Amino acid sequence: MGNVMHLLVVNPNTTASMTQKIGIAAKKVATPGTEITAVNPDQGPASVEGYFDEALSLPGIISVVQDHPEADAIIIACFDDTGLDAIRCMTKAPVVGIGEAAFHMASLLANQFSVVTTLSRSIPALKHNLTRYGLASRCAKVRAAEVPVLDLENNLGDARARIGAEISRAIDEDQAEAIVLGCAGMADLAGALSIEHGLPVLDGVACAVALCESMVRLGLQTSKLGGYAFPAEK
Amino acid sequence: MGNVMHLLVVNPNTTASMTQKIGIAAKKVATPGTEITAVNPDQGPASVEGYFDEALSLPGIISVVQDHPEADAIIIACFDDTGLDAIRCMTKAPVVGIGEAAFHMASLLANQFSVVTTLSRSIPALKHNLTRYGLASRCAKVRAAEVPVLDLENNLGDARARIGAEISRAIDEDQAEAIVLGCAGMADLAGALSIEHGLPVLDGVACAVALCESMVRLGLQTSKLGGYAFPAEK
Amino acid sequence: MGNVMHLLVVNPNTTASMTQKIGIAAKKVATPGTEITAVNPDQGPASVEGYFDEALSLPGIISVVQDHPEADAIIIACFDDTGLDAIRCMTKAPVVGIGEAAFHMASLLANQFSVVTTLSRSIPALKHNLTRYGLASRCAKVRAAEVPVLDLENNLGDARARIGAEISRAIDEDQAEAIVLGCAGMADLAGALSIEHGLPVLDGVACAVALCESMVRLGLQTSKLGGYAFPAEK
Amino acid sequence: MGNVMHLLVVNPNTTASMTQKIGIAAKKVATPGTEITAVNPDQGPASVEGYFDEALSLPGIISVVQDHPEADAIIIACFDDTGLDAIRCMTKAPVVGIGEAAFHMASLLANQFSVVTTLSRSIPALKHNLTRYGLASRCAKVRAAEVPVLDLENNLGDARARIGAEISRAIDEDQAEAIVLGCAGMADLAGALSIEHGLPVLDGVACAVALCESMVRLGLQTSKLGGYAFPAEK
Amino acid sequence: MGNVMHLLVVNPNTTASMTQKIGIAAKKVATPGTEITAVNPDQGPASVEGYFDEALSLPGIISVVQDHPEADAIIIACFDDTGLDAIRCMTKAPVVGIGEAAFHMASLLANQFSVVTTLSRSIPALKHNLTRYGLASRCAKVRAAEVPVLDLENNLGDARARIGAEISRAIDEDQAEAIVLGCAGMADLAGALSIEHGLPVLDGVACAVALCESMVRLGLQTSKLGGYAFPAEK
Amino acid sequence: MGNVMHLLVVNPNTTASMTQKIGIAAKKVATPGTEITAVNPDQGPASVEGYFDEALSLPGIISVVQDHPEADAIIIACFDDTGLDAIRCMTKAPVVGIGEAAFHMASLLANQFSVVTTLSRSIPALKHNLTRYGLASRCAKVRAAEVPVLDLENNLGDARARIGAEISRAIDEDQAEAIVLGCAGMADLAGALSIEHGLPVLDGVACAVALCESMVRLGLQTSKLGGYAFPAEK
Repeated sequence: MGNVMHLLVVNPNTTASMTQKIGIAAKKVATPGTEITAVNPDQGPASVEGYFDEALSLPGIISVVQDHPEADAIIIACFDDTGLDAIRCMTKAPVVGIGEAAFHMASLLANQFSVVTTLSRSIPALKHNLTRYGLASRCAKVRAAEVPVLDLENNLGDARARIGAEISRAIDEDQAEAIVLGCAGMADLAGALSIEHGLPVLDGVACAVALCESMVRLGLQTSKLGGYAFPAEK
Repeated sequence: MGNVMHLLVVNPNTTASMTQKIGIAAKKVATPGTEITAVNPDQGPASVEGYFDEALSLPGIISVVQDHPEADAIIIACFDDTGLDAIRCMTKAPVVGIGEAAFHMASLLANQFSVVTTLSRSIPALKHNLTRYGLASRCAKVRAAEVPVLDLENNLGDARARIGAEISRAIDEDQAEAIVLGCAGMADLAGALSIEHGLPVLDGVACAVALCESMVRLGLQTSKLGGYAFPAEK
Repeated sequence: MGNVMHLLVVNPNTTASMTQKIGIAAKKVATPGTEITAVNPDQGPASVEGYFDEALSLPGIISVVQDHPEADAIIIACFDDTGLDAIRCMTKAPVVGIGEAAFHMASLLANQFSVVTTLSRSIPALKHNLTRYGLASRCAKVRAAEVPVLDLENNLGDARARIGAEISRAIDEDQAEAIVLGCAGMADLAGALSIEHGLPVLDGVACAVALCESMVRLGLQTSKLGGYAFPAEK
Repeated sequence: MGNVMHLLVVNPNTTASMTQKIGIAAKKVATPGTEITAVNPDQGPASVEGYFDEALSLPGIISVVQDHPEADAIIIACFDDTGLDAIRCMTKAPVVGIGEAAFHMASLLANQFSVVTTLSRSIPALKHNLTRYGLASRCAKVRAAEVPVLDLENNLGDARARIGAEISRAIDEDQAEAIVLGCAGMADLAGALSIEHGLPVLDGVACAVALCESMVRLGLQTSKLGGYAFPAEK
Repeated sequence: MGNVMHLLVVNPNTTASMTQKIGIAAKKVATPGTEITAVNPDQGPASVEGYFDEALSLPGIISVVQDHPEADAIIIACFDDTGLDAIRCMTKAPVVGIGEAAFHMASLLANQFSVVTTLSRSIPALKHNLTRYGLASRCAKVRAAEVPVLDLENNLGDARARIGAEISRAIDEDQAEAIVLGCAGMADLAGALSIEHGLPVLDGVACAVALCESMVRLGLQTSKLGGYAFPAEK
Repeated sequence: MGNVMHLLVVNPNTTASMTQKIGIAAKKVATPGTEITAVNPDQGPASVEGYFDEALSLPGIISVVQDHPEADAIIIACFDDTGLDAIRCMTKAPVVGIGEAAFHMASLLANQFSVVTTLSRSIPALKHNLTRYGLASRCAKVRAAEVPVLDLENNLGDARARIGAEISRAIDEDQAEAIVLGCAGMADLAGALSIEHGLPVLDGVACAVALCESMVRLGLQTSKLGGYAFPAEK
């Protein structure tokens, strides 16, 4: 039907169980009339942890986006916002990374937030993103729970304890007023952690779904003037 | 019904025709199930142009918010985001200023944006807000069309021409990739200006409605740890 | 006599004992020929601790300033510099907040300073001010002694011990070279704490009195071009 | 012989004539004992102009680097420094982008510099890089001569005139004390433009060769702690 | 008498007529009981225009400060604030540069100010100072009137016209709300230019005298913890 | 021979044994054909620790530079980069401070670095330099080992232990990916410390030699437009 909004959720890694989990998280918050299509590339890294994995995942991301021209908006469901700028050059549709989505939303709820991500090797990339988005001044600290992404699939109990411990430290040491969970694989933990720790805990997947729906409804599109102009034919 | 979302839109000035226009703009973009209540204080300035008007409008804003405890989210419909921090201390509900709403949304669509506001006397307050939100690096320039707020009610033809001229300059001189309209009274111009100038033109009222709906649906609430804690009883 | 300089010191809260203490502190440092008038609003919060109290105190501040047109300069005697911009729009006379006064003075004596304020709920507002004034890079840390403002009136012994402990931490952990006391109610502690800890300890009331006297003597006035222009008649 | 230093120069686009030109520029400045290998991927964009081309060129860049394990240092010969972080994760050898090389060198010769690049669509990516490297404060302005990269191969006369015109503007309007040429294809213009305009004009290829030679001689290697650690086996 | 405050005003260049003019400007604004001693080194540059002159003037500055141990506060009367940090290491007395004095004062009167200095070769040094003090964000632009310092002694008519022209540009193009005159030799022009252009025009000599008097009266001293500690005996 | 490159290495203090050590360090990394001349002033401080020593050493630095007009490039071999700007005004030859040299090089090898310097009194000057160069965002922390400079000559065992302890803390607490040694007297420790701690440890002397050789070979010269123009004859 013409009224259905097509939201393409791209998990940049090839771990199908994670794509499924992200899809479920997205569907849970989507409003009626939004159709979520969660996809992942056929080829590329099994998880995206740092700069090298990001680069490897790019062709796959581009390819799945090309396969879904019907998308009204596109979500990059990796907390590094891998390939965000490149995808924005491909389409007029809004494109949102789950990292930026959570950073912007947290900025509306709290004076400052801390991020709890998986591994410390990912911290520099996240700090670069925060600086570039302008929101570094809103982030008290980027913390790593030292939980490999795939442990969020396979060893959740221990992972959750480590994440909780970092949230406690963020409250005590960083004066964080909100927490951003720094991995798509943590999407289903946000609600419980928020209640447990008594402050907003944001999951980027949910934030990105809501922001994409908002932009599509408002008729807002990616700018085609300047850096996101369609690439030249060569 | 329990399912209705109550969105309180506070026009901080006392000009009822402007409140009505803002209410219409909000309703136009609200999704089914959202009930928009657009209000303005009984007393205070007829328009908010600069720091002094902001201060004068604060008691009225607080008062109308206190009168609407049923609000699921609150919009400060003045581009200066007047009283935003104070209102956040009053409630767990999300509170969004139309200025910050547009700045955050524009950051998702463009590398950098310019703001076109009413009078140059308002520029310093907007620049302070941008700096504080962290988004000053995303804003190429804050421009004034030298249109008094109330002319947007009474003399729209000339006002529109001046706003259009500033948008053209922003594209040519600032390399702006998107435009944020810097006054609630410009809400109804965004669509046409976007088509005319070929880039996203954002109206803060629409952005704020969508962001509030998003946060309410996601169950996100204003942090009560730190700066937005409920004020102490005295 | 024509030669008398009238300095209006506005305590934004309604606690008369605190107004009196601030007045005494101001008189102690004023030079001969300066007449200090310390006032507080009739209505508003008993203490200003965070954003909400700030907003509530604004009408009272404006009102007492309007009642004193003879003032040659005006001091906002709350460390949040509540209403500073609004008051600057009302007059050509210099207007100085005790927070900014201390920040600027400390920047002339030390490479970096730390702030010791009352409650952590006030920290975000102070950090926003520092950012906006440009002096955030000069401030090593904003610390809270977790002393409610009114305890400075009623339970000074314990309050002093907590403040001293934070000063020690600021020297050891922040490499602070000077301390700014972050509450008008701490005005009378600065001298003793400076001797005790061996570094400059600045009280904003004293700094603001000296800066106002300086500006009046030099004939310097608040700019009426741009953001502090007199508000339009409506 | 063991004493030869192997320097791999990666042109990220597939235009062999440009690779050749870059290789010549690199050899011209290399010291005796340095062996320059200039390569380009088999597949990918014919020129890198903006974010999308960057993403498309990444697999090719990674592949040619993997084919040259003998490299003592690696140069990314695209002014966007495409893939710089990813390549750093692959090796202990120093990896330098021609953009960053020129920015750092210019910072040693001038208080501030301006960049003259090809197309305005590339400006946002360059500004992001400058911000991230920390050197945005050293760059007065990023200017575009509106010369497509491949025109530097095919239509050099006109291209040179446009580049010269932007240099003149940078001196007059930006108070630039040095110029950084913002494209590998401009490598052979630097010397003449420097003489003509009377200020340092830096070509990133030459700067990168010298920096790589320096780091290899000093025994400096890419850090393997943190963000550039070797990627995990998956 | 014990009550006299000794203020040492150091003109870092050797031009005695300029020292005299600075001394007169300082005496004009000093309060009763302040004794102004205006001095200049015997040897060093005739004017301080840029980094090299600054370095040459340092031994002379140190020497005249050593000759005046009775000074209760010291003013560096060169707009570059030459030697400020070094002199602060020599004494507990407050030490104020006329540049920083004017920057801080202007920040109390205006949202942003522009500087009008003598030659463009001095601009980088002033911008470095603004950055270091933290006040770069308060300065819209540093402008040069292209008036050599000594022309302020010998060819004042033309110099004044050029300075006035830059003030007009600062108002129109920079949205400056106040002007800081960027040379000690302009001290006597501030009053008239302020009336003529209708905004605060600040002279650093006057600002520094008032700030020094303020700090001495308040008993504030240069911190001896950290960077301004007395130098070690060697 | 005409082909010899003359590199002047200026130790700003008068301790000849340190000059000798620096000269050895420079020669060790210089390439064939580079002639190192390591000099120190006859008069001035025995070590440069903080602002006052910096000022005292300036005339000596200028004097030794004037005595060596044959220099093709000049190194300021003090980690404060004492007199860097002034020397740049004296010559077209490249001039590099060992502090900036190490900061720039470290930025090519690591996302962020920490500095380990001698005494905490030197920290503010180093932080000012980092801010000014633009590289403050690349530096996680400036740490002091509390080792007086001359102990590096006389009591190296204990000094080395303290420096190693700070490096360990920088890795653990600052997430430093590289270390910059903050004193010319530490030049000979870098190699061993790098192996011991498993990350790049940079010595500014070596970095500066390589950067100077690079700039001379590339024909790059200090800009004579703007702040480094030759000083006017007076």
